[in-house]
Amino acid sequence: MQRSVVPSELQVEVEQFPPLEAPPSTHVDPFKLAEPDLRPLSDSIKDLVGIDHPVLNKVARHFFDMQGKRFRPTILLLVSQALGSARDSPAFTRQKRLAEIAEMIHTASLIHDDVIDVSDMRRGARTVHKIFGNKVAVLAGDFLLARASVLLARLGDTKVVELMATVLEDMVHGEMMQARAEPDDLLSFEHYTLKNYLKTGSLISLSCQSAAVLSGAQADGALGVAARDYGRHLGVAYQLIDDLLDFTASEEQLGKPALADMASGLATAPALFAARQFPEMAGLIKRQFSQETDLEAAYDFVQRSDGVAKSRRLAEVHAQLAISNVRALPGRDETVKQALTQLCHDVLNRRA
Amino acid sequence: MQRSVVPSELQVEVEQFPPLEAPPSTHVDPFKLAEPDLRPLSDSIKDLVGIDHPVLNKVARHFFDMQGKRFRPTILLLVSQALGSARDSPAFTRQKRLAEIAEMIHTASLIHDDVIDVSDMRRGARTVHKIFGNKVAVLAGDFLLARASVLLARLGDTKVVELMATVLEDMVHGEMMQARAEPDDLLSFEHYTLKNYLKTGSLISLSCQSAAVLSGAQADGALGVAARDYGRHLGVAYQLIDDLLDFTASEEQLGKPALADMASGLATAPALFAARQFPEMAGLIKRQFSQETDLEAAYDFVQRSDGVAKSRRLAEVHAQLAISNVRALPGRDETVKQALTQLCHDVLNRRA
Repeated sequence: MQRSVVPSELQVEVEQFPPLEAPPSTHVDPFKLAEPDLRPLSDSIKDLVGIDHPVLNKVARHFFDMQGKRFRPTILLLVSQALGSARDSPAFTRQKRLAEIAEMIHTASLIHDDVIDVSDMRRGARTVHKIFGNKVAVLAGDFLLARASVLLARLGDTKVVELMATVLEDMVHGEMMQARAEPDDLLSFEHYTLKNYLKTGSLISLSCQSAAVLSGAQADGALGVAARDYGRHLGVAYQLIDDLLDFTASEEQLGKPALADMASGLATAPALFAARQFPEMAGLIKRQFSQETDLEAAYDFVQRSDGVAKSRRLAEVHAQLAISNVRALPGRDETVKQALTQLCHDVLNRRA
Repeated sequence: MQRSVVPSELQVEVEQFPPLEAPPSTHVDPFKLAEPDLRPLSDSIKDLVGIDHPVLNKVARHFFDMQGKRFRPTILLLVSQALGSARDSPAFTRQKRLAEIAEMIHTASLIHDDVIDVSDMRRGARTVHKIFGNKVAVLAGDFLLARASVLLARLGDTKVVELMATVLEDMVHGEMMQARAEPDDLLSFEHYTLKNYLKTGSLISLSCQSAAVLSGAQADGALGVAARDYGRHLGVAYQLIDDLLDFTASEEQLGKPALADMASGLATAPALFAARQFPEMAGLIKRQFSQETDLEAAYDFVQRSDGVAKSRRLAEVHAQLAISNVRALPGRDETVKQALTQLCHDVLNRRA
C-alpha cells in the first residue's frame, strides 16, 4: 500500500520547477461561487446524520459548526462542474451527495482524532473529549463512517465505493505512521510526504477522482487522472501551508499555540529543511523535541534556515501542478475553472 | 431507523409458541463441518489485515487469536451451502470473502468497545487498553472497518454493500442506546430487545441475507428473508443465552466475573423478567444497581423469580424460529442443514 506520491526530487529540489503563474486577472471567490449548492448541502448533512440519536446529533453538529469554510465540498462541487456536469443534471445530484460523504468522512476523522490516551489525560483532557467522552467520540465517528458507507453504497457505483474505501484505509494508515514513527522516520522527507498525502491528500484526491467517475469518466482515463491529480496536489499544498503557518502565524491568528506540531513531537517541512542546513537539528527531531530547550533551539534553527521559504516554494510547486490539471478538465464554464485556479492561490495565501 | 425486531408479545408471552423440537438424530458438529473452509479463511483474514503495519497487525492478531470458535464465519459458510452454493462455485468464493468481512466487522466492534473513558480509567484500565492504548484501539478498529469496506466494494454488489453498511449503523446505534439509556429505557423490554438485535443480531442477520444475495437470490425474496431470519433469530438466541449465563455460570467457566452486566449497570432479560414479579426490582434497575447492596438484592430477586427460566424459554422460541427457516433453504446437502439446526441447539446448550 506504500506509494510514492510525488517524484522524490520534487520533494526537495524545487528550483527546477516552473514558477507559480499569476492568479486569474478577474478575481473569482470559489466559496461564493459554490455557495448556492453548498448551503443546502450543509443542511442536508445535518439531516443525514442527525435523525437517529440526540447525542450523536449534538456531537456531529458541534463538529460541523466548528469548521468554517467547507473546503472539501467546495472543491468537489467546482471540480464536478469543471468536469462538465450541469448544476441541474442527475450526475451533479450524485456528485453533491459525494461532497456530503467526503465531509462526513473528514469529520469522522477529526472526531476519532480527538480520542485521547491516558498519557494525554495526565496533561489535561482536550476540549471535545471533556464535553463528550472517549466512548461517544468513537461511536460518533463510527456512526458518521457507517452513514457515509450507506450513502456511498446507494450511489450504486462500486468503483466509487472502492475509491472512497481506499481513502478510509489511507487515513488510518497515515495516522498510524504518525503515531508510531521511529526516529529515522521522523527525519525522512519521504515519510513526511507520504504521511501528509495519506492523512489529507488522499480524501481530496480520490473524492475528486470519484466525482470524475460519477460524471461518466473512466477512473484511470485522462479526466479521472486530471481530477485526481488536481485534488492531490491541492491537498499537499494545503497541508504544507498548514505546517508552515505553525511556524509563522501568531497564536491569535491560528486560534492555537504556534509550534504546536513540534510541541507534540512532529517535525514538518520547515524543520526538515532546516535539518539539511543544520545537522544539529537532526538530533532534536529524532528525540521529538523532548528536552527542555529543544523547542526553542529548533525554532532558532528554522528561523536561521531557509526552511520556511523552501516549504512555501514546495507548496507553490504543488499548487502549480494542481492548476495545470484544471486545464485538462472539459467543462465550458470558464468561471468555474478560474475558481479552481483561484483556490490554489487562496490556499497559498491564507494567513491562518 | 427504529424497527421492531420481533412482535412485542413474543418478548414476554412465550408460552403460546410451540416447544423446541428435538435436535437432529445424528449429531453433526457445525464447526467441524465448516472447518475445511474455515481454516484457510482465518489465515486469509490475518493476511488481509496484517500486511500494512506491524502494530495494527499485532492488535488484530491479539483479537483474532482471542476468539475461539469463529461463530459468524461458521454460520455464513454453512448458510451459503444451504442456499445451494457448491464449495467449488464462484458464488462460494465470494461468500467466503463475505464471511471474512463479517469477522473483521465483528472484531472492529470488539476493539472499539475496548476504548475507555476517563471514568473507566479511575477504576483501572482494561486489559487491551493497557497493552495498546486508546488511540491504537481506535485506529486498529478503523483500519479493520476500512479494509472491510474495500473488500466489500470489490465484491461489486451494491445491495450487499448497503446491507453490510446498515450493519455498521445498527451496531453503533445499539452501542449508543446502551451508553445513553434513560432510567425508563433500562426497564423496557423493547429497548433491551432492540439493543440486542442492533448490537449482535444485525451483523449475523444481514450478513446471512447478503450471502443469499451473493447466491443470486433477491434480498427481499423468499430465500433472502429465510437466510436473514435464520441469522436474526439465531443471533437473538445467542445473546439471550449470553445474558443468562452471566447469572448462572461460575466465574471460572465464563472467564469473567458473573453478574458483570448488572455490575456495569445493565439489566438483561433475567433481571427484566424478575422486575415483572417483584416491583421493587424496578428501582434497582433504574438506578443501575448503583447502591452498595443493590447487586446482591437484585441477584436475590432474580433467583426467587422465574427470570432465568423465562429467558431460556425465550431463547428457545428464537432458536425454533431459526430452525424453521433452515427448512426454507434450497440446498440439497442435508448434513449442512442438520448442522445449521444443530447450531441452534448448541447455542442453547453452551455453558460458558
